[in-house]
Amino acid sequence: MPRRQARRPLPLDAGTVGVVHTRSFTFGSAAEPFLLERGGSLGPVTLAYETYGELAPDGGNAILACHALSGDAHAAGWSSDVDAPSAVDGMGADDKGIVPRGGLGWWDGMIGPGKAFDTRKYFVICSNVLGSCRGSTGPSSIDPATGQPYGARFPLVTVGDMVRAQRELLRHLGVERLLAVAGGSLGGNQALQWTVAYPDMVAGCVAIATCASLSAQGIAWNEIGRQAIMADPDWRNGEYYGSRQPERGLAVARMIGHVTYLSEQSMMAKFGRQRRPAGEAPAPPSPGEATATHGDPRVGPFEVESYLRHQGQRFVERFDANSYLAISRAIDEFDLAEAFGDGALDRAFSRARASFLALSFSSDWLYPPHESQRIVAALEAAGREVTYRNLRSSYGHDAFLLEEGRQTSLIRPFLARLRERTVF
Amino acid sequence: MPRRQARRPLPLDAGTVGVVHTRSFTFGSAAEPFLLERGGSLGPVTLAYETYGELAPDGGNAILACHALSGDAHAAGWSSDVDAPSAVDGMGADDKGIVPRGGLGWWDGMIGPGKAFDTRKYFVICSNVLGSCRGSTGPSSIDPATGQPYGARFPLVTVGDMVRAQRELLRHLGVERLLAVAGGSLGGNQALQWTVAYPDMVAGCVAIATCASLSAQGIAWNEIGRQAIMADPDWRNGEYYGSRQPERGLAVARMIGHVTYLSEQSMMAKFGRQRRPAGEAPAPPSPGEATATHGDPRVGPFEVESYLRHQGQRFVERFDANSYLAISRAIDEFDLAEAFGDGALDRAFSRARASFLALSFSSDWLYPPHESQRIVAALEAAGREVTYRNLRSSYGHDAFLLEEGRQTSLIRPFLARLRERTVF
Repeated sequence: MPRRQARRPLPLDAGTVGVVHTRSFTFGSAAEPFLLERGGSLGPVTLAYETYGELAPDGGNAILACHALSGDAHAAGWSSDVDAPSAVDGMGADDKGIVPRGGLGWWDGMIGPGKAFDTRKYFVICSNVLGSCRGSTGPSSIDPATGQPYGARFPLVTVGDMVRAQRELLRHLGVERLLAVAGGSLGGNQALQWTVAYPDMVAGCVAIATCASLSAQGIAWNEIGRQAIMADPDWRNGEYYGSRQPERGLAVARMIGHVTYLSEQSMMAKFGRQRRPAGEAPAPPSPGEATATHGDPRVGPFEVESYLRHQGQRFVERFDANSYLAISRAIDEFDLAEAFGDGALDRAFSRARASFLALSFSSDWLYPPHESQRIVAALEAAGREVTYRNLRSSYGHDAFLLEEGRQTSLIRPFLARLRERTVF
Repeated sequence: MPRRQARRPLPLDAGTVGVVHTRSFTFGSAAEPFLLERGGSLGPVTLAYETYGELAPDGGNAILACHALSGDAHAAGWSSDVDAPSAVDGMGADDKGIVPRGGLGWWDGMIGPGKAFDTRKYFVICSNVLGSCRGSTGPSSIDPATGQPYGARFPLVTVGDMVRAQRELLRHLGVERLLAVAGGSLGGNQALQWTVAYPDMVAGCVAIATCASLSAQGIAWNEIGRQAIMADPDWRNGEYYGSRQPERGLAVARMIGHVTYLSEQSMMAKFGRQRRPAGEAPAPPSPGEATATHGDPRVGPFEVESYLRHQGQRFVERFDANSYLAISRAIDEFDLAEAFGDGALDRAFSRARASFLALSFSSDWLYPPHESQRIVAALEAAGREVTYRNLRSSYGHDAFLLEEGRQTSLIRPFLARLRERTVF
């Protein structure tokens, strides 16, 4: 949606990490499973991940980048995996221009040589979250106990579980400390979780367009998406593997999500009330569209309708409905104050040792600025060091994927200061 | 959602219009059909309607109240129709307290003796819109040509068609002039349409929480609701009469709508992150809920989830999915500037002769204040008389159904001035 030319330019010396390969790491077993916070267990657990740059000899330059609901391990560069359409996801990041079949990473504008997370200086790690369908263990993975996909038997995973699994990956990579953990949206939830779950491991936290617990409205959107998926007869109580997944329901869920990632202003700027040409079939055609009660024979659908249908259809080609249920539920359940502070967010943050950089965007109504301000107030009450900026942007929640220049100008010095003073 | 006690008190002398009966009026025929703006025709056409108060001897006290998407003719009093659950709809109006089975009108707080539309002084008419399923001709009505419900063959109806049908009803009732036409949301669209389609018939217009054309975001929400309905296999391309209607898709559409009618603030105040008791089944239970990937065995659903499911389920008991498609499409298509001003809204309003009262609500993000301000600016540019207030409210779009006291304090003097000076 947002237009490329509207963004601030990246630093002149910014480059790409080049072609990258997604690897995977497996830990645990049926005999020694990974125990989950809310009960149940998984074993073995596989995490898909990518790394960019080199770990410094002192081990002090590692940065963990955490992705949002529909993201994956492919955060930067061009994927060597030809089957990586998700690489251009994130949210509105699919407007980044021409994308070769290998796919550009979802945060490529932020991670690379000379970029915010400068891979000439830092060793950046990104892993696909537990519960996803992009290479990490999730509902579509084979349950070793049955030889069949977990489906409905996949247990509830939390942001805490996602972070604990990332901890195992870091151990495997020989990373003992994080200079910083960073992410937007659900990625920001994970970043915050890291600072209180593993306070001695995290020197800095970049929490973007996120919250310490989701609002009632946010839960409502997620729930309606889940209802749309579960209402689809193809969902079959989650046991659809081997047949068609609930594509129609998942597409509706995605369309809802998509609108919440944008702003009224950016939608009006991009789509307005423009229409497709008369007679043009919507993409994809809906059953009965031509004869539906709402069909107007004289004009085509509104641009925004055509766009949403297209987005919904593209999403179902690369994302698993049960993973959507699982991860959206983890987002809803995340509550840092409840988990670590008996309901008091400042008490939760009093465990942290990190310095924080919190960013929000003026037009983000899904994770609105006041959610970041709540985090900042609690951090200050807990005596933590925090820098906060509410950036003016018309891009809504998607801004964390799009406002690269301004985020870079804040993140780069934040990381440099951390690196300068942090003696691990 | 909004709490009764938070509202400003009604005038002390406010009362009820008592028990009312919905009547119906039929006009046109297969031989002399009602021609529709976008092509096609309907004949005969039936409109369900109610009236309150008495038409003055001079005929100068008639007020037409227009309802929103899911409303109906039952605007005030207690319905004598025991099968009138919709009477308590509107949107958030179901929180109006105890409701006997006959149902309280959707704008009962505004229409009645001593209320904003004072039935001791004014003759108030409300009719169910063309395309609806609450007594007026719509997709679920019998097509005389086939003896079967119209279903997918129901033609596209516009706000202009709705208003032209109301014109026929007024003729039938002997009402030649309207002191005012009033409504919120789609009802406000109709009110505005009246002033330019029949300028000589309308002395005043009360346009509340409305727009001259829906935003891209508004179209998006309507479209996602339509996609949810059409994705439901029970929709059967609109030909589901005689079997189950697409309940699951319609429920999802309603849940989406419901969230857009509230505000983030009002949802947080009402629901927060409160949960239902552990083990409590959601209402209604979703298929596979107990074993779904997202199910947490230890805690119940969030209050807001339970509430939305309940709202969705209630809605499908009283509303027809094809009517939802048809009316939401009419809302999207409404564009006063395009229809009457070659794209210029002030040119469209230059046709009008009425005085205007425009009201918006600060937390309404579906029909945000700037949409009303666009109307007001165009009216002023066209030299029309207009009073505008943006009322502070946390109730979102629903405020037009709930902020009775403050609307009353503005509408009452507006109508009194009109009545005083208007000589028909």
